[in-house]
Amino acid sequence: MPVVTLITDYGTQDYYAGALKGVILRIAPEARVVDITHDIEPHNVWHGAVVLWQTWSWYPPGTIHLVVVDPGVGTDRRILLGQYGEQYVVAPDNGLVTLVHRYVPVEALHTVENRDYFLPDIRPTFHGRDIMAPVAAHLARGVRPAEFGPALEAPGLLPVEYEAKSTESTVHGRAVYADRFGTLVTNIREDQIAALTSTANVPDVLVNGTSIGPVRLTFSDVAPGEPLALVGGAGLLEIAVNQGRAVDRFGAAPGVRVDVQ
Amino acid sequence: MPVVTLITDYGTQDYYAGALKGVILRIAPEARVVDITHDIEPHNVWHGAVVLWQTWSWYPPGTIHLVVVDPGVGTDRRILLGQYGEQYVVAPDNGLVTLVHRYVPVEALHTVENRDYFLPDIRPTFHGRDIMAPVAAHLARGVRPAEFGPALEAPGLLPVEYEAKSTESTVHGRAVYADRFGTLVTNIREDQIAALTSTANVPDVLVNGTSIGPVRLTFSDVAPGEPLALVGGAGLLEIAVNQGRAVDRFGAAPGVRVDVQ
Amino acid sequence: MPVVTLITDYGTQDYYAGALKGVILRIAPEARVVDITHDIEPHNVWHGAVVLWQTWSWYPPGTIHLVVVDPGVGTDRRILLGQYGEQYVVAPDNGLVTLVHRYVPVEALHTVENRDYFLPDIRPTFHGRDIMAPVAAHLARGVRPAEFGPALEAPGLLPVEYEAKSTESTVHGRAVYADRFGTLVTNIREDQIAALTSTANVPDVLVNGTSIGPVRLTFSDVAPGEPLALVGGAGLLEIAVNQGRAVDRFGAAPGVRVDVQ
Repeated sequence: MPVVTLITDYGTQDYYAGALKGVILRIAPEARVVDITHDIEPHNVWHGAVVLWQTWSWYPPGTIHLVVVDPGVGTDRRILLGQYGEQYVVAPDNGLVTLVHRYVPVEALHTVENRDYFLPDIRPTFHGRDIMAPVAAHLARGVRPAEFGPALEAPGLLPVEYEAKSTESTVHGRAVYADRFGTLVTNIREDQIAALTSTANVPDVLVNGTSIGPVRLTFSDVAPGEPLALVGGAGLLEIAVNQGRAVDRFGAAPGVRVDVQ
Repeated sequence: MPVVTLITDYGTQDYYAGALKGVILRIAPEARVVDITHDIEPHNVWHGAVVLWQTWSWYPPGTIHLVVVDPGVGTDRRILLGQYGEQYVVAPDNGLVTLVHRYVPVEALHTVENRDYFLPDIRPTFHGRDIMAPVAAHLARGVRPAEFGPALEAPGLLPVEYEAKSTESTVHGRAVYADRFGTLVTNIREDQIAALTSTANVPDVLVNGTSIGPVRLTFSDVAPGEPLALVGGAGLLEIAVNQGRAVDRFGAAPGVRVDVQ
Repeated sequence: MPVVTLITDYGTQDYYAGALKGVILRIAPEARVVDITHDIEPHNVWHGAVVLWQTWSWYPPGTIHLVVVDPGVGTDRRILLGQYGEQYVVAPDNGLVTLVHRYVPVEALHTVENRDYFLPDIRPTFHGRDIMAPVAAHLARGVRPAEFGPALEAPGLLPVEYEAKSTESTVHGRAVYADRFGTLVTNIREDQIAALTSTANVPDVLVNGTSIGPVRLTFSDVAPGEPLALVGGAGLLEIAVNQGRAVDRFGAAPGVRVDVQ
């Protein structure tokens, strides 16, 4: 029986996530339900898209990712079921698959429409429980993707300004979020830095126009309290402070400009 | 092997919830332990009762719900084991089963007294780990409810002022809590609204005496920033703000009066 | 298949904990992954050591505890694999095993060096995912501890000032942390109190030099709002306030002196 992961903005103080798990276990009692997070910032589709993408490649073939960040619940936004590589995603079609769609080969895409796989009574504000959880559970039991609805040509995608701009000698990017440690994660990919043709051969990182030195390997490459740039576990450039919090020094993520040259 | 769910106010930064799971897995290694929440507001029995009730109906037959919100731990308050429908609850007898007891048929009720199923060493402040977790685990292994202690005639119940008052033309209720999204959940049930005999046939919702219009289907039925009333996933009337937080507009839950007429 | 528990300071709003679980499930699909906590205070090794110790004894034989609180990640600090009693720990060798090492018999200790059991690509800032999670998973699959690296004579330990000082008539201790309920947990062990030879036979507890009376059995032994001392679920003296928060009355944990005489 496959793994079913949960990525939601439901939080943990309410009954929402608990109801989701019950629905899955009633339909697919052998499924292995794994919490990735219920602490996506409420309604923040970009945050959900990043967490989905960053966890995707680590899960076993056959894994089903149920992702519910759904500010448009109850409107006529579609629900999609996608197979990317050897894994599946069930989510509102609002851009949550943006990064997975860009980086993982798509094998199948369907809109979820077949009410045979929904709960009989559907609340307009809780499609996570009443539509998406039962669909993920039936998928776990072996129902084939095409059974859930017609093929979908392309999913909804978030605008791609999130990508850093590369020239031959510079990458212009920005911080996109701050993690629990106050480290600023940018939109600059490792391969964009590698592609720079610098005369000095050691690219320099600038935060809001001020240099913080070259890309380092790890936090302790600078003195405690000093800022540094390094490539994080997600393969993206990060701005950190050794034993400190970059977000306290440079400000909240969306406003911080980061350049490599 | 059945599902054992956990609903506690232990939080997640201490060792309490982790110890609970270890005790269950040592006694019933095949049990499927599912976190519903450890973020019940500390000592808030009403909050625990609501989450238990709202998750109950979604779980498979045979599920055991271990609910520990226990401000009276170490006093002579009883511990109960109840079978409601095809599921079980193990909890302090302090009102946590109030809503389940009201809405789900009771099949069996026992006080938990048989020390054969407790841990050998019982700390007066940690009955969750030392009494209730092992009882839930032995129940998961197939021990019959009557083995744990004598029958109990009636559980302790919270006072029922939580129910909205219905007349032929009006329902007088109130907000009972705010969820993660700042939506105010009221004590007004869907069937109470349906039973209204309004001349206009479209009941109007008033928050603190001011109309916010009829009951809507979903958030986007009003403009962004506008308040609305709708029936939420729990079958209760909720007061929300489209793309906003009702709790910021109308105040904390307990003080907000809601009427439908 | 054994239980693999997770104790980390990764929090839950990022992808870190989710990636860890995916790596484990890909290598050891039958492992039973259990979250103890991801809410260790960032970089607080002492906090991680306490939670590991307090949950240890409740888990079944064969359990593997993966503990990642790793402020030195990317430096040359070692990673250890220890067998204590019938359970295992995989953790950075930075003192996380201090309390387990003191109180549970050590059966085997190894440094983790064999890259055959690491992920192929190792990020200097994410050894939890790239080294420790795969090692824990291979251990779960039955690889023997000695396969992971050479024997280690002794683990790194935190300084032991955390121990209360006992004389014949007095124990001098201090609060070491506050739990979710605001209760101050001290470093005074139950057996240290039992060993006191008091003329009165009823030891008196002093907080910052002022008596709060004898050790009680449970919260309700004093009036609401009154402070009390009692032995908590961890076998340590705790300072609580009945229906209140000791931390609000006596101050944050590290500054509070507690004596029993």
